[in-house]
Amino acid sequence: MSSLVLNVQGMSCGGCSGKVKKAVEAIDGVDKVDVVLETGAVTIDYHQPTLQADQFKEIIEDLGFDVVS
Amino acid sequence: MSSLVLNVQGMSCGGCSGKVKKAVEAIDGVDKVDVVLETGAVTIDYHQPTLQADQFKEIIEDLGFDVVS
Repeated sequence: MSSLVLNVQGMSCGGCSGKVKKAVEAIDGVDKVDVVLETGAVTIDYHQPTLQADQFKEIIEDLGFDVVS
Repeated sequence: MSSLVLNVQGMSCGGCSGKVKKAVEAIDGVDKVDVVLETGAVTIDYHQPTLQADQFKEIIEDLGFDVVS
């Protein structure tokens, strides 16, 4: 299993972080997503080796948030 | 000029309502967007007669919110 942490800006309430969590968890091959609202850290555990950071970034940016790293 | 009010669910902070306002205001032909966070009312003033409610709904739903009417 692989794990990846993205730094997401623009989440300002539980509704924001919940949307990010829900959208990333819906990606095929993703096992678990933890979002820390205060820091913007989004930790993604996944088992599908073809998944890449850019795919996660795109999904999150489509929701109106910025992925800075 | 035309005006339309959508009932949007799922906005729980100023960040949420700001994303909706910004995304709808970016649509060509839209003049002004007012969002009332507490009620979910999104009022859209636009001058482009070919714009339809479904286009606004799609943009808002893409951000992860529900348009209920």
